[in-house]
Amino acid sequence: MVSIGILGVGTVGASVANILEQNADILEARAGKKIVVKHGVVKNMGKERGVNITLSDNPADIIDDPEIDIVVELMGGVEEPYALVKKALENGKAVVTANKALLAYHRYELQTIAGDIPLMYEASTAGGIPIIGALRSGLAANHIESIQGIMNGTTNYMLTKMINEGALYDEILKEAQELGYAEADPTFDVGGFDASHKLLILASIAYGIDAKPEDILIEGIENITVTDVDFAKEFGYEIKLLGIAKKTESGVELRVHPTMIPATSMIAKVDGVMNAVSVVGDRVGETMYYGPGAGGDATASAVIADIVDIVRGNGGPMLGYKKGLEGGGLELLPEEEIVTHYYLRMEVDDQSGVLAKVTNELDGFGISIESMLQKPHVEDGHVKLLFTTHECQEAKIQEAMLAFKKLDCVHGEIAMMRIEK
Amino acid sequence: MVSIGILGVGTVGASVANILEQNADILEARAGKKIVVKHGVVKNMGKERGVNITLSDNPADIIDDPEIDIVVELMGGVEEPYALVKKALENGKAVVTANKALLAYHRYELQTIAGDIPLMYEASTAGGIPIIGALRSGLAANHIESIQGIMNGTTNYMLTKMINEGALYDEILKEAQELGYAEADPTFDVGGFDASHKLLILASIAYGIDAKPEDILIEGIENITVTDVDFAKEFGYEIKLLGIAKKTESGVELRVHPTMIPATSMIAKVDGVMNAVSVVGDRVGETMYYGPGAGGDATASAVIADIVDIVRGNGGPMLGYKKGLEGGGLELLPEEEIVTHYYLRMEVDDQSGVLAKVTNELDGFGISIESMLQKPHVEDGHVKLLFTTHECQEAKIQEAMLAFKKLDCVHGEIAMMRIEK
Repeated sequence: MVSIGILGVGTVGASVANILEQNADILEARAGKKIVVKHGVVKNMGKERGVNITLSDNPADIIDDPEIDIVVELMGGVEEPYALVKKALENGKAVVTANKALLAYHRYELQTIAGDIPLMYEASTAGGIPIIGALRSGLAANHIESIQGIMNGTTNYMLTKMINEGALYDEILKEAQELGYAEADPTFDVGGFDASHKLLILASIAYGIDAKPEDILIEGIENITVTDVDFAKEFGYEIKLLGIAKKTESGVELRVHPTMIPATSMIAKVDGVMNAVSVVGDRVGETMYYGPGAGGDATASAVIADIVDIVRGNGGPMLGYKKGLEGGGLELLPEEEIVTHYYLRMEVDDQSGVLAKVTNELDGFGISIESMLQKPHVEDGHVKLLFTTHECQEAKIQEAMLAFKKLDCVHGEIAMMRIEK
Repeated sequence: MVSIGILGVGTVGASVANILEQNADILEARAGKKIVVKHGVVKNMGKERGVNITLSDNPADIIDDPEIDIVVELMGGVEEPYALVKKALENGKAVVTANKALLAYHRYELQTIAGDIPLMYEASTAGGIPIIGALRSGLAANHIESIQGIMNGTTNYMLTKMINEGALYDEILKEAQELGYAEADPTFDVGGFDASHKLLILASIAYGIDAKPEDILIEGIENITVTDVDFAKEFGYEIKLLGIAKKTESGVELRVHPTMIPATSMIAKVDGVMNAVSVVGDRVGETMYYGPGAGGDATASAVIADIVDIVRGNGGPMLGYKKGLEGGGLELLPEEEIVTHYYLRMEVDDQSGVLAKVTNELDGFGISIESMLQKPHVEDGHVKLLFTTHECQEAKIQEAMLAFKKLDCVHGEIAMMRIEK
């Protein structure tokens, strides 16, 4: 028999306890041993949890119980779970966590502390989708060339509504909040921070890169307008908030931002609250993993997959491998050195000569235009100028945007979105 | 160091040898040991293989070599590889195979022979997609409710062309043969037999069902016409050749056939030679796995994933679990008892009263119509009658089709296609 303790019995924790009880038949057949939850720890003992397990409010009842083999950490937060997971590992207990923030900040320290003790985290990234397992095992033969993930259901729901139904950002955010898809303070989701935590976890497995959220480019979906959506449609793109990890000759790009991607690509077809991660390996080519990125039962499914793997003795190395996996040469590429295609939107005077000024400016930075659209709709004597560029460096685009702002014929903010082909 | 022998050094075998050599850096980091191919066995020693390994034409050079730890079987065929894999397991060697036909016929005998020795087969199903790993590990918490897979690239390529470009079956088969996607004798692909082997492998992991290809319903794509394609489009369906495993209260349906599925479903969006497998678990809901189903490097990627898992000590039980996994109650449902929606196409006289006769006949079998289309185009005084039914039993539809054939107002063959919602 294997004995489990659950730190944090909220929605996911209750699902874990209930599935372990209700699906005990297949779990025993698959794991080869009976798996039983011995104890749960909660902050608020007064709240009904809907589970048949003993509860207390003292983490030591799990961490220091010699009979508990596996600690499941589902508390949320960063520093408190870090201290508890550390203690559990030091006490020789295997740990399963769904806590992406904990891993975004402390995965390398935890790897060192864990050593040969299993510390698993399938549920931390893309909910019920077994993407961690795919990267650690199924794609082990490959150098990973890129990862592109829709790893936040809230923003994908919002973007789907904006693109398919022409909904406005503010309206759809309100609707998402009413449906419970978005928090009262939606910044963590719509600002791209949630996705960044997941991207960092995947990038550690693929590339061994020890970056923190504040080290990488993160942009949210707050500034996308109907004009951008219309442009994307007209030019055959979908707009998705992607977490992107990409190996280049100079280093690894890690970035989260709204992205125009060809509407024909498989990941562009992922709508609503669903998540998907597309991985390109040097040998297998593209594989994609699709499923629910949130929800109590879906997340618990991933937590229990880890438990079964640990019971079978398949705990494996935590981050898949040491830092600098690929010959030691892989480092995070500075934001300015990212190279991609760009979309720009600006308001300019509706006068002859303006287009020449704008294109001359771009020429000066060595940026060449791929496609252009001038919107006939006139506001205050201005027209909207929309264009996409061939590949160029992020630093050049940023400089060009500053230069545009200084031109008399350009008015207001200049919007930019990155394009992946 | 871990020593590999490869039985069959064709396209996939050469890719395995070359990737193990060229990606040795990551493979050693991920597996924790150096992996080296010691020997390869081929039938025709005269053929250039493009690999840096020693070759011979005697399988005993691998099977009986005490220094070889893992035998990779890539020969094709059934009985010859069965004898060799059996011998290798009896000699205590771990085995990795990509041979779906071998497993479709002998997986339960091999499981018994293997016992605790790893016998892995990620590459046997859906090429480079790690679907076996997902079913064995990532979804372990779930009772599997259904599996729907596009597991044959040739037929998916052909159907995509027929639907998106209106190509005719014969034309597109010829094109697929010229492109090397289809064999000179295409029966194994277009008849659904290739997909059936893969479905049986997945069904063993999910349900522990020991069926052989001849035990299950298999239909190919040979009889799909432009009329069917047009109907599908008009009513919001795609047509895919699916391998379907579905748990019902009476047993498990296993079937391979062209299927109308809602165009909005994720698997309907998988075009061209790509494969995808959608799995519905009772807890996680739907997850889907997408990628290349064939090709030397993609298949080799899956073979090597198995090798790495074995080297890490994560070989696991072969078929995931014993027969009758879910409380011992799961058996193959007889073909006649399948329950689904149906599409029928027939030619009838263009006369009043004909529609009443047809619908009366259906009524007699307790089958109710969901949607109907009468095509105005007249051939020899006939019209085409197309309709879909609500859920009914396969036996009833087969009986109804026989009854239709006896009606004077019905002419020629009656076409039927199953619909999954």
